[in-house]
Amino acid sequence: MSKEMESFREQVLKLTQVGIALTAVHDLDQLLEMIVREARAFTCADAGSLYLREGDSLRFAVSQNETLSRRLGPDGEDRLFSPFTLPITEHSIAGYVAVTRKNLNLPDAYAIPREAPYGFNTSFDERNDYRTRSMLTVPMLDHRGQVLGVLQLINATAPDGEVVPFERAREDLVRSLASQAAVAVHNARLTAEIKRIHLDTIYRLAMAAEYKDKDTAQHIRRVSNYSAALARRLGWGAADVELMLYASPMHDVGKIGIADAILLKPGRLTPEEREAMQHHTTIGARILAGSESPVLQMSELVAYSHHEKWDGTGYPRGLAGKAIPQAGRIVAVADVFDALISKRVYKGALGVEETLEILRKDAGTHFDPEAVEAFAANMDENLAIRERYRDEEKAAPAQPAPASG
Amino acid sequence: MSKEMESFREQVLKLTQVGIALTAVHDLDQLLEMIVREARAFTCADAGSLYLREGDSLRFAVSQNETLSRRLGPDGEDRLFSPFTLPITEHSIAGYVAVTRKNLNLPDAYAIPREAPYGFNTSFDERNDYRTRSMLTVPMLDHRGQVLGVLQLINATAPDGEVVPFERAREDLVRSLASQAAVAVHNARLTAEIKRIHLDTIYRLAMAAEYKDKDTAQHIRRVSNYSAALARRLGWGAADVELMLYASPMHDVGKIGIADAILLKPGRLTPEEREAMQHHTTIGARILAGSESPVLQMSELVAYSHHEKWDGTGYPRGLAGKAIPQAGRIVAVADVFDALISKRVYKGALGVEETLEILRKDAGTHFDPEAVEAFAANMDENLAIRERYRDEEKAAPAQPAPASG
Repeated sequence: MSKEMESFREQVLKLTQVGIALTAVHDLDQLLEMIVREARAFTCADAGSLYLREGDSLRFAVSQNETLSRRLGPDGEDRLFSPFTLPITEHSIAGYVAVTRKNLNLPDAYAIPREAPYGFNTSFDERNDYRTRSMLTVPMLDHRGQVLGVLQLINATAPDGEVVPFERAREDLVRSLASQAAVAVHNARLTAEIKRIHLDTIYRLAMAAEYKDKDTAQHIRRVSNYSAALARRLGWGAADVELMLYASPMHDVGKIGIADAILLKPGRLTPEEREAMQHHTTIGARILAGSESPVLQMSELVAYSHHEKWDGTGYPRGLAGKAIPQAGRIVAVADVFDALISKRVYKGALGVEETLEILRKDAGTHFDPEAVEAFAANMDENLAIRERYRDEEKAAPAQPAPASG
Repeated sequence: MSKEMESFREQVLKLTQVGIALTAVHDLDQLLEMIVREARAFTCADAGSLYLREGDSLRFAVSQNETLSRRLGPDGEDRLFSPFTLPITEHSIAGYVAVTRKNLNLPDAYAIPREAPYGFNTSFDERNDYRTRSMLTVPMLDHRGQVLGVLQLINATAPDGEVVPFERAREDLVRSLASQAAVAVHNARLTAEIKRIHLDTIYRLAMAAEYKDKDTAQHIRRVSNYSAALARRLGWGAADVELMLYASPMHDVGKIGIADAILLKPGRLTPEEREAMQHHTTIGARILAGSESPVLQMSELVAYSHHEKWDGTGYPRGLAGKAIPQAGRIVAVADVFDALISKRVYKGALGVEETLEILRKDAGTHFDPEAVEAFAANMDENLAIRERYRDEEKAAPAQPAPASG
């Protein structure tokens, strides 16, 4: 086998490995960064960008620049990145590639032939004291042949550090990498959509379960997000934090089994009624029990344990301390915080300081002290969540309108 | 560029296209067939098989054979296929490849060196009067390097029809195709798992919504499956049939908003109570409204319209004929069929013939006549669904145990 062929063969096998690695990444942001990083490594490019198609525009989604990030330090690259969109026309380089679906391999971005429809925008270079020279821009075509985005590689670098043109012989391979990347992006979006829909379903049905109750749809969303944020603060990994986001909305699903006469009673409950009301924890756990779904498994745990207290005086089992599942201890704090700080028909809202004081006073008796401290330390994020899911923007079922009877 | 290199290059680009196509298929069965088909096309192989790893075994999952399917006609290939599993040991060819993770390229399966640990099982050839000669077997390694299965290609065929050995020079490419296939299989399984979990969540929360009601968890599963089967019979595409499977369980979710005094009343409802009860359609639609999820969109439609009647005497809107969404007409038939044929506390079960007679009598007044006829034509499948989700195997919340009050 010739040496040229041997080297080509190695590149191909490398490319397949890259394709496989990309296909296995399901987080879109992570995937986009990885596409540019791998494409740069494959072509020894100093810099690279990725544009995603959104309707008739290209959105600048990723930018990496080795020279500038070395010059500016680890955070410098982020400062360089300013999002913008381009119309898909032949006037810009990325637009031209999206329209024509052809590769564009420029030896020098400052020496574009006069007759070309596109021009190079030098503002980035001027702002950052950078010199763009060679540039390879390829379309990202998905499996249906649609342009999903544009990949742009900048300043191919020879082993001696000199900037050289991108090899013609590799163009096909880069184009093929961009297409594998496009399908991976398509898949990541599908996964994200399925997840979004799954969460929407959980929220709606959790809301439905509280249809007759005083709680609002926004209360469910807030508790879900407070709980996830608190779990993260307590050191949970990203996958478990996501589980918590999905599982916590269902913590009160067992209220569905509580008689109207108790659930909707305006005054104080009698001891017998209070006991009946407490069954919402076990009813909820029974509704959610025995599933293969990790989300439902965690929600069962939360439904069962979110009314246990740190000192063992809670229900349904009177568990104490770390014998209470941590997921339940987390939701207990998030749920009570939101109840105290929110205005309800039967009570006014407390201020943030006052609410925190109550939680802290009850840390060690009602609440897990570690969870309360982490929650307090996370207060900026909590208040942002509260702002984002305000009660004013109620979804339809938040206003209970049970049939009369 | 040399001719050899040019041809290699073409193969590589073809291979990438195959990888992209595979990655875009999310249905596992379809994907497995496509992997074997594409790998055969790529190597001009007369036959091919795919084994999937399951614990310590390999399960024979796909078998394709051009010669035999031509000889036996379109259904013949199916008759040839008999599922079996192999232990993962070095004694079989597929097992050897799974254990060693090496390619095995045999010029003739009947001329295996005496010292090889594996042997060729000739029973398929004898049974089908086929002659296996050349055979290329490669492991399917996923992105984590784990053996997900084994791909086996049989009888590479030259343009003149002669069986020849598989080219050594292509082994790497076939191996790489098998790995791209492995990641695609991994992704298809992930998607299937997410969907299964999504359906489980929908079932549980639909069950929860009927917690106090007389309906059982199995009733919800049966109506879901009858409705999907009926939609298929009426010519809906696979994706819409799946939507129906997911959407129909939620048709009564609005019962959550009905007061206990009406929902649980043992005797006959007064006209006022009946009217209040009818609100479960609009309450359900409101709970499900305004989602981006196609499943929730369809379930909103079904919740709203499953009590409309063909002659316009139904509720809530009194729509008639084809003005009623077809999804609602489908669920109406499935829901009433299951109610009639099932035993409840307050009534005995009717027989199949008697139930069908009622549906047919009410076709054109209550029911869409086309839906009733399609449902009747589908009775074998309906009875299989009924058998599969019998009331005896009740899930936990099927036995209502509301707190007293």
